[in-house]
Amino acid sequence: MIYSFKNDYSKICHKDVLNKLIECMNEQNVGYGEDIHTLNAINLIKNKIKHNSDIYFLAGGTITNMIAISSVLKPYEAVICCDTGHINVHETGAIEGQGHKVISIKSNDGKLNVDLIDEVIKKHIDHHMVKPKMIYISNTTELGGYYKLKELEELSKYSKEHDLYLYLDGARLASALAISDIDYSDYSRLTDMFYIGGTKNGSYFGEALIINNDSLKKEFNYNIKHFGGMIAKGFVTSIPFEVLMDGDLYINIGKHQNDMAKYLTDELKKLNIKFYSESETNQVFVYLKNNILNELNKDFLFEEWDKDINGFTPIRFVTSFDTEKKHIDLLIKRISELL
Amino acid sequence: MIYSFKNDYSKICHKDVLNKLIECMNEQNVGYGEDIHTLNAINLIKNKIKHNSDIYFLAGGTITNMIAISSVLKPYEAVICCDTGHINVHETGAIEGQGHKVISIKSNDGKLNVDLIDEVIKKHIDHHMVKPKMIYISNTTELGGYYKLKELEELSKYSKEHDLYLYLDGARLASALAISDIDYSDYSRLTDMFYIGGTKNGSYFGEALIINNDSLKKEFNYNIKHFGGMIAKGFVTSIPFEVLMDGDLYINIGKHQNDMAKYLTDELKKLNIKFYSESETNQVFVYLKNNILNELNKDFLFEEWDKDINGFTPIRFVTSFDTEKKHIDLLIKRISELL
Amino acid sequence: MIYSFKNDYSKICHKDVLNKLIECMNEQNVGYGEDIHTLNAINLIKNKIKHNSDIYFLAGGTITNMIAISSVLKPYEAVICCDTGHINVHETGAIEGQGHKVISIKSNDGKLNVDLIDEVIKKHIDHHMVKPKMIYISNTTELGGYYKLKELEELSKYSKEHDLYLYLDGARLASALAISDIDYSDYSRLTDMFYIGGTKNGSYFGEALIINNDSLKKEFNYNIKHFGGMIAKGFVTSIPFEVLMDGDLYINIGKHQNDMAKYLTDELKKLNIKFYSESETNQVFVYLKNNILNELNKDFLFEEWDKDINGFTPIRFVTSFDTEKKHIDLLIKRISELL
Amino acid sequence: MIYSFKNDYSKICHKDVLNKLIECMNEQNVGYGEDIHTLNAINLIKNKIKHNSDIYFLAGGTITNMIAISSVLKPYEAVICCDTGHINVHETGAIEGQGHKVISIKSNDGKLNVDLIDEVIKKHIDHHMVKPKMIYISNTTELGGYYKLKELEELSKYSKEHDLYLYLDGARLASALAISDIDYSDYSRLTDMFYIGGTKNGSYFGEALIINNDSLKKEFNYNIKHFGGMIAKGFVTSIPFEVLMDGDLYINIGKHQNDMAKYLTDELKKLNIKFYSESETNQVFVYLKNNILNELNKDFLFEEWDKDINGFTPIRFVTSFDTEKKHIDLLIKRISELL
Repeated sequence: MIYSFKNDYSKICHKDVLNKLIECMNEQNVGYGEDIHTLNAINLIKNKIKHNSDIYFLAGGTITNMIAISSVLKPYEAVICCDTGHINVHETGAIEGQGHKVISIKSNDGKLNVDLIDEVIKKHIDHHMVKPKMIYISNTTELGGYYKLKELEELSKYSKEHDLYLYLDGARLASALAISDIDYSDYSRLTDMFYIGGTKNGSYFGEALIINNDSLKKEFNYNIKHFGGMIAKGFVTSIPFEVLMDGDLYINIGKHQNDMAKYLTDELKKLNIKFYSESETNQVFVYLKNNILNELNKDFLFEEWDKDINGFTPIRFVTSFDTEKKHIDLLIKRISELL
Repeated sequence: MIYSFKNDYSKICHKDVLNKLIECMNEQNVGYGEDIHTLNAINLIKNKIKHNSDIYFLAGGTITNMIAISSVLKPYEAVICCDTGHINVHETGAIEGQGHKVISIKSNDGKLNVDLIDEVIKKHIDHHMVKPKMIYISNTTELGGYYKLKELEELSKYSKEHDLYLYLDGARLASALAISDIDYSDYSRLTDMFYIGGTKNGSYFGEALIINNDSLKKEFNYNIKHFGGMIAKGFVTSIPFEVLMDGDLYINIGKHQNDMAKYLTDELKKLNIKFYSESETNQVFVYLKNNILNELNKDFLFEEWDKDINGFTPIRFVTSFDTEKKHIDLLIKRISELL
Repeated sequence: MIYSFKNDYSKICHKDVLNKLIECMNEQNVGYGEDIHTLNAINLIKNKIKHNSDIYFLAGGTITNMIAISSVLKPYEAVICCDTGHINVHETGAIEGQGHKVISIKSNDGKLNVDLIDEVIKKHIDHHMVKPKMIYISNTTELGGYYKLKELEELSKYSKEHDLYLYLDGARLASALAISDIDYSDYSRLTDMFYIGGTKNGSYFGEALIINNDSLKKEFNYNIKHFGGMIAKGFVTSIPFEVLMDGDLYINIGKHQNDMAKYLTDELKKLNIKFYSESETNQVFVYLKNNILNELNKDFLFEEWDKDINGFTPIRFVTSFDTEKKHIDLLIKRISELL
Repeated sequence: MIYSFKNDYSKICHKDVLNKLIECMNEQNVGYGEDIHTLNAINLIKNKIKHNSDIYFLAGGTITNMIAISSVLKPYEAVICCDTGHINVHETGAIEGQGHKVISIKSNDGKLNVDLIDEVIKKHIDHHMVKPKMIYISNTTELGGYYKLKELEELSKYSKEHDLYLYLDGARLASALAISDIDYSDYSRLTDMFYIGGTKNGSYFGEALIINNDSLKKEFNYNIKHFGGMIAKGFVTSIPFEVLMDGDLYINIGKHQNDMAKYLTDELKKLNIKFYSESETNQVFVYLKNNILNELNKDFLFEEWDKDINGFTPIRFVTSFDTEKKHIDLLIKRISELL
C-alpha cells in the first residue's frame, strides 16, 4: 500500500499533539475533566467562539450526537435531519436507541433548508405524532458540501421562530471553517449546540461539544455519565484540543485538507474523470470504471461509496492533515496508467 | 502538590505505551478495529485466556459495562450486584438508562456469594417481577477486596445451574491477577463475559471486553455502534493492549501496585492508623483525624471515602503503576508530623 | 349531530358484548388473564387460526404494536414499514421510544411489496447501520386498501428467506377478513405475529395479539408487564373476544362495515364526488369542496385527512358495526343539498 | 369456590358503572378523551380536589406509574420508594425500562418518612451518581398501612425544600380516603401528581392521573401516546369515573371495604389467629397453619404473601366493594372448623 485516501482518521494524530503528550507524561492530573488541560482547552475555545458556552470533551462522534440529542429532547420529541445525515444512516440507530425518532428529509445535495423543514413542521400537528424539536445538520456535509453563513442564519432564525433547537455536527468542522464564511463565533451565535471534531482533524480521538443555549446547560455532566460518555482521564481527551485550538492549527489543518482535495480534483479533471458530486472540501467523489478498482486498490485505499451504475462505481477519496502532493501525484499516475 | 494517591488514573500512560505510539506515528491504519494492532492485541489476549473468545476494545469502564450488560439482557431481565457495585452506585444509572433493573444485595465486604444470590433468585418467582439473568461482580472489588478461584468457581457453577450470565468487571484486573489464584484463562473459563481494564493499569484509556459465551457473540459490533461505543481510530484503543498484554507487563503493573500498597499499609500500621477495611490490593482505606486532612491535602491528594465518624474520616489512598517508595515515605513522614 | 362517520370507535361496544358483561356481573375471576373467559377466548381463536399460537389480550393498538415489536427486536434491529404506516406516523414515536428505528418506505398505495423491501435490505450492509429485522404491514391499510393472499404469501416467503419477522397489524382485520381471500389460518401460517383488532370492531377496547413463531413465545408475559400492558382484570379484556370470536360475529361485523362503505361509495359516485383513493373496505376517502365542510359538519362528523388542494379537502368517512343505510341516506341527502 | 378474598379486582365492576354503560350504549362519542363523559368526569374530580389540575384516564396502575414517572424525570434522574413499593417489586422493571433508577429504601412498615429519605438524598452528592428527583409513595400501602395528613404534609414540605417531586400511587385510594384524615383536596395540595385508582375500587379498569404541578402539565398528551397509554375509546375509560366520582360513591366503596376488613379482623382475632401486619384498610394479613391452606383453598381464594415460617404461612385476605358479612362468616366458620 502506498497511501490511503480511505478516510481522515487513519493516522494516530498530528505530531504537535503527540509532542504535547510527551511533554505531559510526568504530570499527575485529577480525573473527569477537572484538570488544568481541560480548563485550558475550554478557555482556548471560548476565545474563539466568543461566547460563554459550556464545553465538554467526548470520545467520538456517535456518542457525542447521542448525548447531545438525547439529553435535551423529551421522550416524545424528534430530531429532523436530511436523508443522508450521519445520525439517520451511519449510527446504527443510536438516536432511536435512546428513544427519539429521527425524521429524515429527502435532500438532493445533503443539506437542509427552511422550505424542506417547514414542510415537515406543518405536517406534525398534534399529539398523535412526534413533536419535531431539533434540527440536525453537519458542516461539512456527508457529501462534501458546506453551509454558508446566510444559510446557517436562515436555519437559526427559523429554529428560534418555531421553538426548535439547532444542532450542528462538526466532525469535519476544520474543513468547513477553512472554506465557509462561518466563523467559530457564528457557530456559537447561531446554534444551540455544536461540536468541534477532533478525530478527523488531527486528534487521536475526541470531540468538543459546545452548549450555547443556557437552558440546555444544567446538570449536563449527569447526562454525560448516564449515557456512558464520561472519560476517567479527561485530560487525555482535552490535551489534543489544547494543541489544535492554540492559534490557527485547527483551521490550518482544514485548509490543508481542502487544498489537497482541490489539487486532487484538478488533477482528476485533467483525466476527464466524471464527478459524483461537487465538493470543495476534503472529500472528493468520482466515478471510476469497475475494472480498474481492484488494481488501484493494491496501492491506494479509498471508499466505494455506492453501487456501480453502468460499469462505473462512485468512489470517495479523502484528504487528511498529512496528505502530501506526492501522494496525490502517485495516485493520479496510477489512475492514468489504468485508464 | 508532592504526589497524588487520589486514584490510579492520574497519569497519561505507562512509558512503554507512549513509546509504541511514537513508533506507529507514520502508519496509516483502517478504522473501526479492523487494523493490524487490534488483531495483534486480540491474539496476545487469546494466548493468555486460552479461549476462542471475541474481543473488543472500548473507551471506558462505564460504557463497557453498559454495552456488555444491555446487549445481552432482554428488556425485562435484570442484573444482580452488591450494594457497593460500580454499576449500582457510580454510573449515574447507565444500566437502568438502557432499560434494566439493577438488583442490589447488601454485602458487608463488597463481594457476592452463592447464598446471597440464591436468596434473590428465590424471591423472583413470576412475571410480575423482573427476571434476574446476570450476576455482576468486579475483581478487585470497590473496597479493595478480591475473589479467589474457589469463590469464582462457585459463582460460575451457580450461574450455569440457574441459567444466569456471570459478568466480571476488571477495571482493576491487574491488581487482582497479581494477588489472586485466578489466572487469565480462569476468567474466560468461568465467566460469560469480563473486561480487562486499561485505564487504571497504564493505558491512556480503554478496556478490552472479552466475550466467552458463544451465544452472546453474534453481531456484537452492532451493539457497540448502537450504544455509542464504536471508536473510529480503533487502533488507538488497541495499541495500549498490544503493549500491556505483551509478556508480563500487565500483571507486573498489578504486582507493583499491590507491593506499593503493602508498603504503604505496613508504614501506616507502624503509625497505629486505624483501617477502614482490609485490603491487599492497590486501594488502602484508613481513618484519619479530620483536623489533619486539610493540612495533608496541601501536599498529597487522596479521596474522602465517606462521612466522618467521631472526628475521623475514612480515606482512600490508591497506588499506581508509577508510585514509588519515595512518594510513600514522604506521605508517611507528613502524616506522622501531623498526628 | 345526526351521525358520526369520523371513525369506527365512537360507540361503547356491540350489544352482544354488553350482554355478555351483564351475564358475568356476579362472577369472581382471578386476575391477569388466568381466568376462564380468557381461556375460552383463546380457544375460540385457536379454532379459527388452526395453529398452536400464544395469545394475549391487550388494551389498544399502539401498546400492542409497541409490545409486539419491542419484545422481539434486539436493540440494534429495526422494523420496516410503509411511509403511511401507523407506527411511522400516528404513534408519537412509541416504537422509537423503546429503542428501535422505524425504516419507512415511500409507497403510493399504502402497501409494501417484496421489491420495495428488497431495496432497503440491500442498502443495510454492515454494523454501521441498523439491521432491518421485521416487516410491519397492516390489513386493511391506512388508506383503505387490503392485501390479498398472494401478496401476503410473497411477503412471508421473502421474510423467511431473509430471516425477517413478518408482523401484521389487524386493527381493522374484520374488514380485511370480509373482503380478502386471506383466512384466519393464513394469518397464522404466514406471519410471525399479528393482532386481531377489537376496538374498531365492536369491543369497548382490546386487541388480541397472536404469536405464531415459537421462538418468540418465551416469557412473553414478562414483556407485557414490563412494557406496561398487563391488565389486572384480564377477563374484562378477553370477554369481548369470547363474543366476537364465537361463530361468525367478527367477520360479519367486517362484512357489514364493508357493505355500508360500498353503499356510501356508490351513492357518492352518483353525486360525481371525486375520490381521493380507491377503497373497498370501511374507510372511504373523497374530496369535498372546502366551502361545504363547515355546514356538513353541523350534522355529520368526519375526518379531514389532509390539506386542501385547489379548494377541495380530502375527507375520510368511516363506517362501523352500527352504521345503517338510513345514516348514509341522510348524509348523501345533506351533501347533495350543499353541492 | 364460595368466595374469593384473593384481591379487589375479581368482579367486572360496580353495578352503577354497568348501568351507566347501558345508558350510554346508543351514543356516539369522539375519541381520545375529547368527549363529554371525560369532560364530566374531569369536572367531578376537580370539584373534589379543588385544584385546577390536569386529569387523564389511563388503563391500569403500572402504565399510569410508568407514564407519570417517565414523563417528568430527565434521563439521569431517579425515583425513591420503599423496598416494598409496587414500582420496585411488582412492575417487572417498567420504570427502569424507561430509563430511570428506582432507589429503594428499607422500611419496616411499608412507608417512607423524611428521615429515611434524607439519608438517601445526602448520599447522592455528584454527577457520578443518579440524581434523586421524585418520591413515590402509595396510599394505602402495599402492607395495608396508610399515611395521615401530618405525614403527607411532612413529605410534601421536604419535597419542596429539596426540589423533589412527590408522586402518590392511589391504586387503593378509596380505602385510604375512608380511613385517613387526608381529603381529596389535600392530595392535590400536597403532591405534584397522584392517581385515583379505579380498577380496585369498582371500575372495570382505569385510573385517573391528576397532575397538580403546573410545570409538569405541558404536552402531557404527547407523553401518554408515546408511552402507549392512549385509549381510542377514551369515554370507556372515563365513564366509570363519572359514576364513582358522583357524590360519595367512591369513598363509600372505600368505607365498605374497610368495614368488611374490620369485621374480618375482629372475627379472626376471636379465633386467636396471629397477625402478620397491622392493617385497618382492606387488606388483612395473618399467619395460617400450612396444613389448613389446601383445605381452605377449596372454598375460598386468598394470596400466599410470603414463605412459611415454622409451619405458618403469611396470608392476605382482601375485601372488595361487593364483599358481604355472609362471605366473611362462611370464611371464619371454615377456618374455625379447620383449626
